[in-house]
Amino acid sequence: METAMRLSRFFMPILKENPKEAEIVSHRLMLRAGMIRQQSQGIYSWLPLGKRVLDKVCAIVREEQDRAGANEILMPTLQSAELWQESGRYEAYGKEMLRIADRQDRPMLYGPTNEEMVTDIFRSSVKSYKDLPLNLYHIQWKFRDEIRPRFGTMRSREFLMKDAYSFDLTKEDAIHAYNRMFTAYLRTFDRLGLRAIPMRADTGPIGGNHSHEFIILADTGESEVFCHKDFTEFDIPAEDTDFDDVKGLEAIFDKWTSLYAATSEMHDEAAFDAIPEGDRLSARGIEVGHIFYFGTKYSEPMGAKVQGPDGKEHFVHSGSYGIGPSRLVPAIIEASHDDNGIIWPDSIAPFNVVVINMKSGDASCDGACEKLYGDLQKAGVDVLYDDTDDRAGTKFATADLIGVPTQVVVGPRSIANGEVEVKNRRTGERETMTVEAALNRLTA
Amino acid sequence: METAMRLSRFFMPILKENPKEAEIVSHRLMLRAGMIRQQSQGIYSWLPLGKRVLDKVCAIVREEQDRAGANEILMPTLQSAELWQESGRYEAYGKEMLRIADRQDRPMLYGPTNEEMVTDIFRSSVKSYKDLPLNLYHIQWKFRDEIRPRFGTMRSREFLMKDAYSFDLTKEDAIHAYNRMFTAYLRTFDRLGLRAIPMRADTGPIGGNHSHEFIILADTGESEVFCHKDFTEFDIPAEDTDFDDVKGLEAIFDKWTSLYAATSEMHDEAAFDAIPEGDRLSARGIEVGHIFYFGTKYSEPMGAKVQGPDGKEHFVHSGSYGIGPSRLVPAIIEASHDDNGIIWPDSIAPFNVVVINMKSGDASCDGACEKLYGDLQKAGVDVLYDDTDDRAGTKFATADLIGVPTQVVVGPRSIANGEVEVKNRRTGERETMTVEAALNRLTA
Repeated sequence: METAMRLSRFFMPILKENPKEAEIVSHRLMLRAGMIRQQSQGIYSWLPLGKRVLDKVCAIVREEQDRAGANEILMPTLQSAELWQESGRYEAYGKEMLRIADRQDRPMLYGPTNEEMVTDIFRSSVKSYKDLPLNLYHIQWKFRDEIRPRFGTMRSREFLMKDAYSFDLTKEDAIHAYNRMFTAYLRTFDRLGLRAIPMRADTGPIGGNHSHEFIILADTGESEVFCHKDFTEFDIPAEDTDFDDVKGLEAIFDKWTSLYAATSEMHDEAAFDAIPEGDRLSARGIEVGHIFYFGTKYSEPMGAKVQGPDGKEHFVHSGSYGIGPSRLVPAIIEASHDDNGIIWPDSIAPFNVVVINMKSGDASCDGACEKLYGDLQKAGVDVLYDDTDDRAGTKFATADLIGVPTQVVVGPRSIANGEVEVKNRRTGERETMTVEAALNRLTA
Repeated sequence: METAMRLSRFFMPILKENPKEAEIVSHRLMLRAGMIRQQSQGIYSWLPLGKRVLDKVCAIVREEQDRAGANEILMPTLQSAELWQESGRYEAYGKEMLRIADRQDRPMLYGPTNEEMVTDIFRSSVKSYKDLPLNLYHIQWKFRDEIRPRFGTMRSREFLMKDAYSFDLTKEDAIHAYNRMFTAYLRTFDRLGLRAIPMRADTGPIGGNHSHEFIILADTGESEVFCHKDFTEFDIPAEDTDFDDVKGLEAIFDKWTSLYAATSEMHDEAAFDAIPEGDRLSARGIEVGHIFYFGTKYSEPMGAKVQGPDGKEHFVHSGSYGIGPSRLVPAIIEASHDDNGIIWPDSIAPFNVVVINMKSGDASCDGACEKLYGDLQKAGVDVLYDDTDDRAGTKFATADLIGVPTQVVVGPRSIANGEVEVKNRRTGERETMTVEAALNRLTA
């Protein structure tokens, strides 16, 4: 992605009116800021501003998957029905699966998830326990034909998912693989500026018997959640966490599951009531990740076996691990906005700085802006330069709406003294300083 | 993508046998090197080695699109049939279009291209000539239900395409937009290590009257091509090309179209024969890009208009510009391989260096390899470390097969003198040097 952009050359169709179809604030703001556009029911285009955020979310997800030892692949969106007949899920999946016939009339489907396909890749190429552990993930578009898609990309039909799949010789190894992903998820959400709480979960159509949802707290959440409030202050595993350290990851898992936390489906009122009243947290939440251990549920019907150290063949133990980047974008907005618009965390902001020229055409403003823009660009800062002819008020409103963390305002009066105003979007704080001081601060 | 990888932790299922189904060398080598796996007819998974190359190809394509002023968006894979009824292409497109009905029985399709959808985005948000020029592109999976998919990802049904779409007020402006992409394509293919020659082309189902295919020469090419041999030595436009310079880009276009070049469909025997015999080049080629100017072909039926400086409404003039990254990967292999395997250009090599430990388990070999691997990683070099227990011969064969440009061989005898062997995959040259000298060379 390009580091620096002039707004006059950046396609960002701001809506002046509040779109009526949007029921929740993230959907409203994503439409107003020109981040997305609906193409069909539950199917969206990502416009440049949205695409930048989506890419940054994916980059963080990817880094943490890689850190945890997972290998990135890319499976296709379309799958053959045969694979799903092997696992027995073809009939079971119901109407959410988009079924397709190609020109030869072969039954296919748009993948809603990839357990079957990745198991097929595994069985065709891995024969020995020596090649384990293995975790394969991809970030690819999925389709689930929901009867009532809504809330923009929070609950769309075509959506982007990172799904990882682990393969191990034994259940014990598979639990370690599960803990790797558990730990990676804690780090991922934290880097996205979210506090996610792992909660015991139902396994639904994926199956299995050990599963956690990662839930962030937000008033517009779809599910009711109940947990101990200490979760909001637990430490996040460090960047140098050793993902091969079985005991170490177990300790992280144990700590993060030591207190009560459950969605309404899994809620145990008695256990919740046992928490001291002041420590109870009952709120609404948004699911942002879901991990499953399902043992041999797919390896058995699909014949995914490896030779063990005992010389015998064993069905591999597996799990799957999902995060939806196209859902995370609105989830982050739900967690971080105000009346004026979005407030991006720095890690995923589409731009980290916006230079606002209050009087385009004024030689001193233009000159100062060009210099700031050029210097920030050279320093590798993701910077947007509002070089349009819009009125200053419109420019301020746009900058607030699109949520760029730092605004640098260049006006004719202050620039005459060599000064600019630096505004923090989150706190609203404004400081006047020299151009040089602003540059030093923003490139520090 | 992670910079450094240990082969023991990298999923790269090498095939020992030559896959029988593969008719051309790139398909054979991509299967043998564990880059891809077929999932259904003409539908492939990209395994980690292939994914790394695909990502690097996309990164170069993206950089050159951005440099030329295009804006990246991401449109969905599925489209509503209505849009295509508006343009009149829904019936016309024939059986290559994968038609789908969702659970509400609404007619949809898997996009084979995006002229309609991007025109819809345009008409909904751009109203004035002041917002032009505009070029929107995306890199997204497409589907064309070819009757006979073959040659691996060279001609697959689900394939990755970069498609850009330009919007301008006048034909004159649109021709400048065309020249921007023309120039960007010359740079893109050059950076991918390819010599692509623009040839006048048929416009097929996209339509329009001004179109060029970019063809690389390769013995396995699907089409017969005829051109002046000077094309193989023309200079490529520089990185600092000014894409706003109308005359400058026109000069580039004129130069690159000044000599005869045509595919067999457009071949003019008399014109070709007019070239001095020694300058005639008749060969087989692979199409790696295709650009079209089609004027108001979509804007008129779909009502994509802007207000001009004259206060009146005008249908916009457009073009579309395609490159297939999933096709480029095999095309590059066709152009660059030998009997031992792939020879990647440095710009898109999955790794730029492979450190080969000839005797894993030997303390001095392990120590030297770890140090090399660590230091290369710190220097930001994409490095693969073959730390497996395979025999040295197997490791050499694998390194040659996967085509990493530089091999650093660490053996017990030479490392006793503090030396390693550095092999250039392309030339086969080997040099013995100290570990320090190797590091200096590889991080230079």
